Amino acid sequence: MTTNQLVQQIKEKKSFLCIGLDVDLNKIPKHLLNEDDPIFAFNKAIIDATHHLCVAYKPNTAFYEAYGIKGWQALEKTINYLNEKYPEIFTIADAKRGDIGNTSTMYAKAFFEDLAFDSVTVAPYMGKDSIEPFLAFENKHTIMLALTSNEGAFDFQTKEIEGKEVYKHVLETSKSWKNSENLMYVVGATKAEYLGDIRNIIPDSFLLVPGVGAQGGNLKDVCKYGLNDNIGLLINSSRGIIYASSNENFAHEAASKARELQQEMQNILSLT
Amino acid sequence: MTTNQLVQQIKEKKSFLCIGLDVDLNKIPKHLLNEDDPIFAFNKAIIDATHHLCVAYKPNTAFYEAYGIKGWQALEKTINYLNEKYPEIFTIADAKRGDIGNTSTMYAKAFFEDLAFDSVTVAPYMGKDSIEPFLAFENKHTIMLALTSNEGAFDFQTKEIEGKEVYKHVLETSKSWKNSENLMYVVGATKAEYLGDIRNIIPDSFLLVPGVGAQGGNLKDVCKYGLNDNIGLLINSSRGIIYASSNENFAHEAASKARELQQEMQNILSLT
Repeated sequence: MTTNQLVQQIKEKKSFLCIGLDVDLNKIPKHLLNEDDPIFAFNKAIIDATHHLCVAYKPNTAFYEAYGIKGWQALEKTINYLNEKYPEIFTIADAKRGDIGNTSTMYAKAFFEDLAFDSVTVAPYMGKDSIEPFLAFENKHTIMLALTSNEGAFDFQTKEIEGKEVYKHVLETSKSWKNSENLMYVVGATKAEYLGDIRNIIPDSFLLVPGVGAQGGNLKDVCKYGLNDNIGLLINSSRGIIYASSNENFAHEAASKARELQQEMQNILSLT
Repeated sequence: MTTNQLVQQIKEKKSFLCIGLDVDLNKIPKHLLNEDDPIFAFNKAIIDATHHLCVAYKPNTAFYEAYGIKGWQALEKTINYLNEKYPEIFTIADAKRGDIGNTSTMYAKAFFEDLAFDSVTVAPYMGKDSIEPFLAFENKHTIMLALTSNEGAFDFQTKEIEGKEVYKHVLETSKSWKNSENLMYVVGATKAEYLGDIRNIIPDSFLLVPGVGAQGGNLKDVCKYGLNDNIGLLINSSRGIIYASSNENFAHEAASKARELQQEMQNILSLT
Protein backbone atom coordinates (compact mmCIF):
# COMPACT_ATOMS: atom_id res chain seq x y z
CA MET A 1 0.00 0.00 0.00
CA THR A 2 1.25 3.49 -0.80
CA THR A 3 1.24 6.30 1.75
CA ASN A 4 -1.23 8.17 -0.47
CA GLN A 5 -3.66 5.27 -0.31
CA LEU A 6 -3.40 5.31 3.48
CA VAL A 7 -4.05 9.06 3.59
CA GLN A 8 -7.02 8.64 1.24
CA GLN A 9 -8.52 5.97 3.49
CA ILE A 10 -8.08 8.22 6.55
CA LYS A 11 -9.92 11.06 4.83
CA GLU A 12 -12.76 8.82 3.70
CA LYS A 13 -13.30 7.18 7.08
CA LYS A 14 -12.52 10.34 9.07
CA SER A 15 -10.44 8.11 11.28
CA PHE A 16 -6.78 7.49 11.91
CA LEU A 17 -7.43 4.70 14.37
CA CYS A 18 -5.32 1.55 14.47
CA ILE A 19 -6.66 -1.39 16.46
CA GLY A 20 -4.09 -3.60 18.16
CA LEU A 21 -4.91 -7.30 17.94
CA ASP A 22 -3.05 -8.50 21.05
CA VAL A 23 -5.01 -11.65 21.68
CA ASP A 24 -4.58 -13.28 25.08
CA LEU A 25 -6.58 -16.51 25.52
CA ASN A 26 -7.04 -15.63 29.19
CA LYS A 27 -8.85 -12.42 28.27
CA ILE A 28 -11.11 -13.30 25.34
CA PRO A 29 -14.76 -14.31 25.91
CA LYS A 30 -14.97 -17.84 27.30
CA HIS A 31 -17.43 -19.09 24.69
CA LEU A 32 -14.79 -18.63 21.97
CA LEU A 33 -12.51 -21.22 23.58
CA ASN A 34 -14.74 -23.93 22.07
CA GLU A 35 -13.87 -22.75 18.54
CA ASP A 36 -11.28 -24.59 16.43
CA ASP A 37 -9.12 -21.49 16.38
CA PRO A 38 -10.24 -19.16 19.20
CA ILE A 39 -7.64 -16.49 18.36
CA PHE A 40 -8.74 -16.18 14.74
CA ALA A 41 -12.43 -16.39 15.69
CA PHE A 42 -11.87 -13.47 18.08
CA ASN A 43 -9.93 -11.42 15.50
CA LYS A 44 -12.49 -12.07 12.75
CA ALA A 45 -15.36 -10.91 14.96
CA ILE A 46 -13.45 -7.79 16.04
CA ILE A 47 -12.41 -6.98 12.46
CA ASP A 48 -15.90 -7.48 11.00
CA ALA A 49 -17.35 -5.20 13.68
CA THR A 50 -14.78 -2.40 13.51
CA HIS A 51 -13.23 -2.25 10.01
CA HIS A 52 -15.29 0.82 8.99
CA LEU A 53 -14.12 2.75 12.07
CA CYS A 54 -10.37 2.21 11.77
CA VAL A 55 -7.75 2.36 9.02
CA ALA A 56 -5.23 -0.15 10.36
CA TYR A 57 -4.89 -3.34 12.38
CA LYS A 58 -1.77 -4.18 14.32
CA PRO A 59 -1.33 -7.75 15.56
CA ASN A 60 1.55 -7.90 18.05
CA THR A 61 3.54 -11.00 17.13
CA ALA A 62 4.38 -11.83 20.78
CA PHE A 63 0.77 -12.77 21.46
CA TYR A 64 0.83 -15.26 18.58
CA GLU A 65 4.30 -16.71 19.15
CA ALA A 66 3.33 -17.47 22.76
CA TYR A 67 0.93 -20.11 21.39
CA GLY A 68 3.50 -21.75 19.09
CA ILE A 69 2.40 -23.20 15.76
CA LYS A 70 -1.28 -22.58 16.52
CA GLY A 71 -0.52 -18.96 17.25
CA TRP A 72 1.46 -18.51 14.04
CA GLN A 73 -1.41 -20.14 12.11
CA ALA A 74 -3.87 -17.71 13.70
CA LEU A 75 -1.62 -14.81 12.69
CA GLU A 76 -1.46 -16.10 9.12
CA LYS A 77 -5.24 -16.56 8.95
CA THR A 78 -5.76 -13.06 10.34
CA ILE A 79 -3.54 -11.30 7.81
CA ASN A 80 -4.95 -13.39 4.96
CA TYR A 81 -8.49 -12.51 6.05
CA LEU A 82 -7.62 -8.82 6.18
CA ASN A 83 -5.88 -8.85 2.79
CA GLU A 84 -8.75 -10.71 1.11
CA LYS A 85 -11.81 -9.13 2.69
CA TYR A 86 -10.58 -5.63 3.57
CA PRO A 87 -7.68 -4.85 1.19
CA GLU A 88 -8.05 -1.11 1.87
CA ILE A 89 -6.88 -1.62 5.48
CA PHE A 90 -3.25 -0.85 6.38
CA THR A 91 -1.69 -3.79 8.21
CA ILE A 92 1.11 -3.62 10.76
CA ALA A 93 3.11 -6.57 12.08
CA ASP A 94 4.16 -5.25 15.48
CA ALA A 95 7.28 -7.37 15.72
CA LYS A 96 10.06 -4.96 16.77
CA ARG A 97 12.65 -6.90 14.80
CA GLY A 98 16.18 -5.90 13.78
CA ASP A 99 19.41 -7.85 13.19
CA ILE A 100 22.51 -7.86 10.99
CA GLY A 101 21.82 -7.30 7.29
CA ASN A 102 21.31 -10.80 5.91
CA THR A 103 19.10 -11.64 8.91
CA SER A 104 16.98 -8.50 8.63
CA THR A 105 16.39 -9.44 5.00
CA MET A 106 14.90 -12.73 6.23
CA TYR A 107 12.64 -10.87 8.69
CA ALA A 108 11.54 -8.54 5.90
CA LYS A 109 10.68 -11.56 3.74
CA ALA A 110 8.75 -13.11 6.64
CA PHE A 111 6.52 -10.08 7.16
CA PHE A 112 6.38 -8.42 3.73
CA GLU A 113 6.32 -11.51 1.51
CA ASP A 114 5.28 -14.63 3.39
CA LEU A 115 2.66 -12.90 5.56
CA ALA A 116 2.12 -9.93 3.19
CA PHE A 117 1.81 -7.22 5.81
CA ASP A 118 2.01 -3.59 4.64
CA SER A 119 4.43 -2.73 7.42
CA VAL A 120 6.53 -4.03 10.28
CA THR A 121 7.89 -2.40 13.43
CA VAL A 122 11.67 -2.50 13.98
CA ALA A 123 14.11 -1.56 16.76
CA PRO A 124 16.99 0.84 15.92
CA TYR A 125 19.72 -0.31 18.33
CA MET A 126 21.79 -2.09 15.64
CA GLY A 127 21.76 0.90 13.28
CA LYS A 128 21.64 1.50 9.55
CA ASP A 129 22.54 -1.90 8.13
CA SER A 130 19.94 -3.59 10.35
CA ILE A 131 17.11 -1.40 8.98
CA GLU A 132 17.96 -0.73 5.33
CA PRO A 133 17.09 -4.32 4.26
CA PHE A 134 13.49 -3.59 5.31
CA LEU A 135 13.46 -0.26 3.46
CA ALA A 136 14.34 -1.93 0.17
CA PHE A 137 10.81 -3.31 -0.26
CA GLU A 138 8.65 -1.12 -2.49
CA ASN A 139 5.31 0.11 -1.12
CA LYS A 140 6.11 -1.50 2.23
CA HIS A 141 6.64 0.56 5.36
CA THR A 142 9.13 0.15 8.16
CA ILE A 143 8.00 1.62 11.47
CA MET A 144 11.04 2.26 13.68
CA LEU A 145 10.95 2.73 17.45
CA ALA A 146 11.86 6.31 18.33
CA LEU A 147 10.35 7.27 21.70
CA THR A 148 8.31 4.47 23.24
CA SER A 149 5.33 4.71 25.58
CA ASN A 150 6.81 2.80 28.53
CA GLU A 151 8.78 3.91 31.61
CA GLY A 152 11.91 2.21 30.24
CA ALA A 153 12.02 4.83 27.48
CA PHE A 154 13.79 7.02 30.04
CA ASP A 155 16.60 4.47 30.54
CA PHE A 156 18.31 5.17 27.21
CA GLN A 157 16.07 6.92 24.66
CA THR A 158 15.93 10.27 26.46
CA LYS A 159 19.58 10.33 27.55
CA GLU A 160 21.62 12.98 25.77
CA ILE A 161 24.40 12.47 23.23
CA GLU A 162 26.20 15.77 22.65
CA GLY A 163 23.27 17.69 24.10
CA LYS A 164 20.65 15.86 22.08
CA GLU A 165 18.51 12.92 23.17
CA VAL A 166 19.20 9.44 21.78
CA TYR A 167 15.75 9.24 20.14
CA LYS A 168 16.46 12.48 18.26
CA HIS A 169 19.74 11.04 16.99
CA VAL A 170 17.79 7.99 15.87
CA LEU A 171 15.29 10.17 13.98
CA GLU A 172 17.92 12.42 12.39
CA THR A 173 20.32 9.63 11.45
CA SER A 174 17.58 7.53 9.88
CA LYS A 175 16.74 10.30 7.43
CA SER A 176 20.03 9.66 5.63
CA TRP A 177 19.39 5.95 5.10
CA LYS A 178 18.62 4.55 1.67
CA ASN A 179 14.88 4.54 0.90
CA SER A 180 14.20 6.43 4.13
CA GLU A 181 10.92 7.60 2.58
CA ASN A 182 9.63 4.14 3.57
CA LEU A 183 10.16 4.90 7.27
CA MET A 184 7.47 5.65 9.83
CA TYR A 185 8.19 6.01 13.55
CA VAL A 186 6.78 4.83 16.87
CA VAL A 187 6.18 7.66 19.35
CA GLY A 188 4.28 6.86 22.55
CA ALA A 189 1.13 8.85 23.37
CA THR A 190 2.31 9.05 26.99
CA LYS A 191 5.02 11.44 25.80
CA ALA A 192 2.88 13.83 23.73
CA GLU A 193 4.85 16.88 24.95
CA TYR A 194 7.86 15.60 22.98
CA LEU A 195 5.92 15.59 19.70
CA GLY A 196 6.66 19.21 18.81
CA ASP A 197 10.39 18.58 18.75
CA ILE A 198 9.85 15.32 16.90
CA ARG A 199 7.78 17.04 14.19
CA ASN A 200 10.61 19.54 13.69
CA ILE A 201 12.92 16.64 12.75
CA ILE A 202 10.46 14.55 10.72
CA PRO A 203 7.64 16.87 9.63
CA ASP A 204 6.31 14.61 6.89
CA SER A 205 6.57 11.09 8.31
CA PHE A 206 3.71 9.02 9.65
CA LEU A 207 3.86 8.29 13.37
CA LEU A 208 2.40 5.17 14.95
CA VAL A 209 1.26 6.25 18.40
CA PRO A 210 0.54 3.57 21.00
CA GLY A 211 -0.40 4.31 24.59
CA VAL A 212 -3.80 6.00 24.21
CA GLY A 213 -6.20 4.33 26.65
CA ALA A 214 -4.85 1.55 28.89
CA GLN A 215 -1.41 3.18 29.06
CA GLY A 216 -2.82 6.65 29.87
CA GLY A 217 -2.05 8.76 26.78
CA ASN A 218 -4.36 11.56 25.67
CA LEU A 219 -5.60 11.81 22.07
CA LYS A 220 -6.07 15.60 21.99
CA ASP A 221 -2.51 16.25 23.17
CA VAL A 222 -1.11 13.87 20.59
CA CYS A 223 -3.05 15.54 17.78
CA LYS A 224 -2.16 19.06 18.92
CA TYR A 225 1.54 18.41 18.31
CA GLY A 226 1.50 15.42 15.97
CA LEU A 227 -0.89 16.13 13.10
CA ASN A 228 0.62 17.28 9.81
CA ASP A 229 -0.77 18.20 6.39
CA ASN A 230 -1.21 14.53 5.53
CA ILE A 231 -2.69 13.73 8.97
CA GLY A 232 0.54 11.79 9.63
CA LEU A 233 -0.76 9.89 12.66
CA LEU A 234 -1.95 6.37 13.34
CA ILE A 235 -3.29 6.17 16.88
CA ASN A 236 -3.28 2.67 18.27
CA SER A 237 -5.59 1.30 20.90
CA SER A 238 -5.48 -2.38 21.82
CA ARG A 239 -6.84 -3.48 25.19
CA GLY A 240 -9.23 -0.52 25.52
CA ILE A 241 -11.10 -1.68 22.42
CA ILE A 242 -10.73 -5.43 22.02
CA TYR A 243 -11.38 -6.26 25.69
CA ALA A 244 -14.24 -3.77 26.14
CA SER A 245 -16.44 -6.70 27.09
CA SER A 246 -16.01 -10.43 27.68
CA ASN A 247 -19.65 -11.22 26.95
CA GLU A 248 -21.15 -12.73 23.80
CA ASN A 249 -21.65 -9.18 22.47
CA PHE A 250 -17.91 -8.38 22.81
CA ALA A 251 -17.50 -7.36 19.17
CA HIS A 252 -20.38 -4.91 19.40
CA GLU A 253 -18.88 -3.41 22.56
CA ALA A 254 -15.48 -3.20 20.88
CA ALA A 255 -17.10 -1.32 17.99
CA SER A 256 -18.68 1.12 20.46
CA LYS A 257 -15.26 1.89 21.95
CA ALA A 258 -13.75 2.21 18.48
CA ARG A 259 -16.57 4.53 17.43
CA GLU A 260 -15.91 6.79 20.44
CA LEU A 261 -12.31 7.23 19.30
CA GLN A 262 -13.32 7.61 15.64
CA GLN A 263 -15.81 10.33 16.60
CA GLU A 264 -13.19 12.14 18.61
CA MET A 265 -10.86 11.93 15.60
CA GLN A 266 -13.57 13.18 13.25
CA ASN A 267 -14.12 16.19 15.53
CA ILE A 268 -10.41 16.93 15.63
CA LEU A 269 -10.09 16.63 11.83
CA SER A 270 -13.06 18.98 11.29
CA LEU A 271 -11.28 21.65 13.33
CA THR A 272 -8.00 21.48 11.42
CA MET B 1 19.94 -24.91 32.64
CA THR B 2 22.02 -23.25 35.33
CA THR B 3 25.15 -21.26 34.54
CA ASN B 4 27.16 -23.82 36.51
CA GLN B 5 25.91 -26.62 34.26
CA LEU B 6 26.99 -24.61 31.23
CA VAL B 7 30.45 -24.03 32.71
CA GLN B 8 30.73 -27.73 33.56
CA GLN B 9 29.88 -28.67 29.97
CA ILE B 10 32.49 -26.25 28.63
CA LYS B 11 35.17 -27.78 30.84
CA GLU B 12 34.26 -31.34 29.86
CA LYS B 13 34.16 -30.63 26.13
CA LYS B 14 37.05 -28.16 26.19
CA SER B 15 34.92 -26.02 23.96
CA PHE B 16 32.92 -22.82 24.25
CA LEU B 17 31.65 -23.02 20.70
CA CYS B 18 28.09 -22.10 19.79
CA ILE B 19 26.85 -23.11 16.35
CA GLY B 20 24.34 -20.81 14.68
CA LEU B 21 21.57 -22.66 12.86
CA ASP B 22 20.66 -19.97 10.31
CA VAL B 23 19.12 -22.20 7.70
CA ASP B 24 18.60 -20.72 4.26
CA LEU B 25 16.96 -23.10 1.76
CA ASN B 26 19.02 -21.49 -1.00
CA LYS B 27 22.25 -22.54 0.71
CA ILE B 28 21.65 -26.06 2.01
CA PRO B 29 22.65 -29.11 -0.05
CA LYS B 30 20.23 -29.62 -2.92
CA HIS B 31 19.52 -33.28 -2.11
CA LEU B 32 17.86 -32.23 1.16
CA LEU B 33 15.16 -30.30 -0.68
CA ASN B 34 13.43 -33.64 -1.38
CA GLU B 35 12.95 -34.25 2.35
CA ASP B 36 9.57 -33.60 4.02
CA ASP B 37 11.18 -30.93 6.18
CA PRO B 38 14.50 -29.88 4.62
CA ILE B 39 15.27 -27.35 7.36
CA PHE B 40 14.91 -29.87 10.17
CA ALA B 41 16.73 -32.55 8.15
CA PHE B 42 19.64 -30.16 7.72
CA ASN B 43 19.67 -29.17 11.40
CA LYS B 44 19.45 -32.77 12.60
CA ALA B 45 22.40 -33.79 10.45
CA ILE B 46 24.48 -30.80 11.60
CA ILE B 47 23.60 -31.40 15.26
CA ASP B 48 24.32 -35.14 15.17
CA ALA B 49 27.71 -34.45 13.56
CA THR B 50 28.81 -31.57 15.82
CA HIS B 51 27.16 -31.89 19.28
CA HIS B 52 30.36 -33.23 20.93
CA LEU B 53 32.37 -30.23 19.64
CA CYS B 54 30.12 -27.40 20.79
CA VAL B 55 28.21 -26.47 23.92
CA ALA B 56 25.37 -24.44 22.42
CA TYR B 57 23.17 -24.12 19.33
CA LYS B 58 21.63 -20.84 18.30
CA PRO B 59 18.83 -20.90 15.72
CA ASN B 60 18.15 -17.38 14.49
CA THR B 61 14.37 -17.03 14.39
CA ALA B 62 14.40 -14.85 11.24
CA PHE B 63 15.48 -17.80 9.12
CA TYR B 64 12.50 -19.82 10.35
CA GLU B 65 9.88 -17.06 10.25
CA ALA B 66 10.79 -16.38 6.63
CA TYR B 67 9.26 -19.79 5.79
CA GLY B 68 6.02 -19.19 7.70
CA ILE B 69 4.27 -22.09 9.44
CA LYS B 70 6.72 -24.62 7.97
CA GLY B 71 9.61 -22.62 9.31
CA TRP B 72 8.10 -22.36 12.77
CA GLN B 73 7.46 -26.13 12.72
CA ALA B 74 11.10 -26.74 11.79
CA LEU B 75 12.19 -24.51 14.69
CA GLU B 76 9.94 -26.43 17.08
CA LYS B 77 11.25 -29.78 15.84
CA THR B 78 14.82 -28.57 16.17
CA ILE B 79 14.49 -27.41 19.78
CA ASN B 80 12.53 -30.54 20.73
CA TYR B 81 15.22 -32.73 19.16
CA LEU B 82 17.95 -30.89 21.05
CA ASN B 83 16.09 -31.05 24.37
CA GLU B 84 15.32 -34.75 24.02
CA LYS B 85 18.52 -36.11 22.51
CA TYR B 86 21.17 -33.68 23.80
CA PRO B 87 19.75 -32.16 27.01
CA GLU B 88 23.25 -31.08 28.12
CA ILE B 89 23.40 -28.54 25.25
CA PHE B 90 22.66 -24.87 25.97
CA THR B 91 20.05 -23.56 23.56
CA ILE B 92 19.70 -19.96 22.38
CA ALA B 93 16.72 -18.50 20.52
CA ASP B 94 18.37 -15.65 18.64
CA ALA B 95 15.26 -13.53 18.40
CA LYS B 96 16.33 -10.03 19.53
CA ARG B 97 12.91 -9.34 21.04
CA GLY B 98 11.82 -6.59 23.44
CA ASP B 99 8.54 -4.72 23.98
CA ILE B 100 6.43 -3.18 26.75
CA GLY B 101 6.08 -5.34 29.87
CA ASN B 102 2.99 -7.43 29.20
CA THR B 103 4.21 -8.09 25.65
CA SER B 104 7.72 -9.09 26.70
CA THR B 105 6.08 -11.58 29.08
CA MET B 106 4.39 -13.18 26.07
CA TYR B 107 7.73 -13.36 24.21
CA ALA B 108 9.33 -14.94 27.28
CA LYS B 109 6.54 -17.54 27.38
CA ALA B 110 7.01 -18.22 23.67
CA PHE B 111 10.72 -18.98 23.97
CA PHE B 112 11.13 -20.24 27.56
CA GLU B 113 7.90 -22.22 27.93
CA ASP B 114 6.33 -23.08 24.57
CA LEU B 115 9.64 -23.76 22.79
CA ALA B 116 11.65 -24.49 25.99
CA PHE B 117 14.87 -22.73 24.99
CA ASP B 118 17.43 -22.09 27.73
CA SER B 119 17.90 -18.51 26.59
CA VAL B 120 16.73 -15.78 24.24
CA THR B 121 18.43 -12.70 22.83
CA VAL B 122 16.79 -9.30 23.48
CA ALA B 123 17.30 -5.68 22.37
CA PRO B 124 17.74 -3.00 25.07
CA TYR B 125 16.25 0.08 23.37
CA MET B 126 13.01 0.04 25.40
CA GLY B 127 14.80 -0.24 28.75
CA LYS B 128 14.22 -1.93 32.09
CA ASP B 129 10.53 -2.83 31.93
CA SER B 130 11.00 -4.41 28.49
CA ILE B 131 13.69 -6.80 29.79
CA GLU B 132 12.74 -7.63 33.39
CA PRO B 133 9.82 -9.87 32.32
CA PHE B 134 12.39 -12.17 30.69
CA LEU B 135 14.62 -12.13 33.77
CA ALA B 136 11.81 -13.41 36.00
CA PHE B 137 12.17 -16.95 34.60
CA GLU B 138 14.28 -19.20 36.82
CA ASN B 139 17.24 -20.98 35.24
CA LYS B 140 16.56 -19.20 31.97
CA HIS B 141 19.01 -16.69 30.50
CA THR B 142 18.38 -13.41 28.75
CA ILE B 143 21.13 -12.37 26.37
CA MET B 144 20.96 -8.63 25.77
CA LEU B 145 22.55 -6.79 22.85
CA ALA B 146 25.39 -4.59 24.08
CA LEU B 147 27.91 -4.00 21.29
CA THR B 148 26.98 -5.77 18.08
CA SER B 149 29.25 -7.08 15.34
CA ASN B 150 27.89 -5.01 12.44
CA GLU B 151 28.84 -1.60 11.04
CA GLY B 152 25.59 -0.12 12.31
CA ALA B 153 26.88 -0.56 15.87
CA PHE B 154 28.69 2.73 15.31
CA ASP B 155 25.43 4.59 14.57
CA PHE B 156 24.19 4.67 18.17
CA GLN B 157 25.91 2.08 20.42
CA THR B 158 29.30 3.77 20.47
CA LYS B 159 28.02 7.35 20.71
CA GLU B 160 28.77 8.97 24.06
CA ILE B 161 26.29 9.95 26.77
CA GLU B 162 28.03 12.13 29.36
CA GLY B 163 31.42 10.92 28.17
CA LYS B 164 30.48 7.25 28.16
CA GLU B 165 29.34 5.13 25.23
CA VAL B 166 25.68 4.06 24.95
CA TYR B 167 26.60 0.35 25.17
CA LYS B 168 28.41 0.97 28.46
CA HIS B 169 25.32 2.70 29.83
CA VAL B 170 23.32 -0.32 28.73
CA LEU B 171 25.71 -2.67 30.55
CA GLU B 172 25.89 -0.60 33.73
CA THR B 173 22.18 0.19 33.93
CA SER B 174 21.20 -3.43 33.41
CA LYS B 175 23.15 -4.52 36.49
CA SER B 176 20.55 -2.78 38.67
CA TRP B 177 17.59 -4.63 37.17
CA LYS B 178 15.73 -7.30 39.10
CA ASN B 179 17.20 -10.78 38.59
CA SER B 180 20.08 -9.30 36.60
CA GLU B 181 22.08 -12.42 37.43
CA ASN B 182 20.08 -14.02 34.59
CA LEU B 183 21.62 -11.63 32.05
CA MET B 184 24.25 -12.45 29.47
CA TYR B 185 25.35 -10.00 26.77
CA VAL B 186 26.03 -9.94 23.03
CA VAL B 187 29.43 -8.47 22.13
CA GLY B 188 30.61 -8.77 18.54
CA ALA B 189 33.95 -10.43 17.83
CA THR B 190 34.69 -7.71 15.30
CA LYS B 191 35.07 -5.31 18.23
CA ALA B 192 37.41 -7.39 20.41
CA GLU B 193 39.42 -4.32 21.42
CA TYR B 194 36.41 -3.10 23.38
CA LEU B 195 36.28 -6.26 25.50
CA GLY B 196 38.69 -5.03 28.17
CA ASP B 197 36.43 -2.12 29.07
CA ILE B 198 33.39 -4.37 28.90
CA ARG B 199 34.96 -6.89 31.30
CA ASN B 200 35.58 -4.06 33.76
CA ILE B 201 31.83 -3.41 33.89
CA ILE B 202 30.57 -7.00 33.83
CA PRO B 203 33.47 -9.21 34.97
CA ASP B 204 31.35 -12.26 35.77
CA SER B 205 28.74 -12.38 33.01
CA PHE B 206 28.73 -14.71 30.05
CA LEU B 207 29.18 -13.03 26.66
CA LEU B 208 27.72 -14.39 23.45
CA VAL B 209 30.21 -13.42 20.76
CA PRO B 210 29.08 -13.54 17.13
CA GLY B 211 31.21 -12.45 14.23
CA VAL B 212 34.07 -14.97 14.27
CA GLY B 213 34.50 -16.29 10.74
CA ALA B 214 32.25 -14.90 8.01
CA GLN B 215 32.08 -11.48 9.69
CA GLY B 216 35.86 -11.28 10.23
CA GLY B 217 36.35 -11.50 13.99
CA ASN B 218 39.41 -13.15 15.52
CA LEU B 219 39.10 -15.83 18.24
CA LYS B 220 42.46 -15.18 19.94
CA ASP B 221 41.73 -11.46 20.36
CA VAL B 222 38.31 -12.17 21.80
CA CYS B 223 39.74 -14.66 24.32
CA LYS B 224 42.61 -12.38 25.31
CA TYR B 225 40.21 -9.78 26.64
CA GLY B 226 37.01 -11.75 27.16
CA LEU B 227 37.83 -14.91 29.14
CA ASN B 228 37.08 -14.86 32.85
CA ASP B 229 37.44 -17.39 35.69
CA ASN B 230 34.31 -19.21 34.54
CA ILE B 231 35.35 -19.03 30.87
CA GLY B 232 32.46 -16.58 30.39
CA LEU B 233 32.40 -16.77 26.60
CA LEU B 234 30.22 -18.45 24.02
CA ILE B 235 31.75 -17.95 20.58
CA ASN B 236 29.25 -18.28 17.79
CA SER B 237 29.96 -19.38 14.27
CA SER B 238 27.11 -19.89 11.82
CA ARG B 239 27.85 -19.74 8.09
CA GLY B 240 31.50 -20.74 8.49
CA ILE B 241 30.46 -24.11 9.92
CA ILE B 242 27.03 -25.05 8.60
CA TYR B 243 27.77 -24.10 4.99
CA ALA B 244 31.28 -25.57 4.88
CA SER B 245 30.12 -27.81 2.05
CA SER B 246 26.99 -28.21 -0.06
CA ASN B 247 27.77 -31.82 -0.95
CA GLU B 248 26.26 -34.98 0.50
CA ASN B 249 29.03 -35.02 3.11
CA PHE B 250 28.09 -31.51 4.35
CA ALA B 251 27.64 -32.61 7.96
CA HIS B 252 31.08 -34.19 8.05
CA GLU B 253 32.61 -31.01 6.59
CA ALA B 254 30.71 -28.90 9.14
CA ALA B 255 32.14 -31.09 11.91
CA SER B 256 35.67 -30.55 10.53
CA LYS B 257 35.20 -26.79 10.71
CA ALA B 258 33.70 -27.06 14.20
CA ARG B 259 36.62 -29.24 15.29
CA GLU B 260 39.13 -26.62 14.06
CA LEU B 261 37.50 -24.04 16.30
CA GLN B 262 37.16 -26.48 19.21
CA GLN B 263 40.88 -27.35 18.94
CA GLU B 264 41.80 -23.69 18.93
CA MET B 265 39.63 -23.22 22.04
CA GLN B 266 41.21 -26.26 23.73
CA ASN B 267 44.65 -24.78 23.10
CA ILE B 268 43.61 -21.43 24.51
CA LEU B 269 42.05 -23.04 27.61
CA SER B 270 45.18 -25.11 28.24
CA LEU B 271 47.25 -21.90 28.38
CA THR B 272 45.00 -20.09 30.87
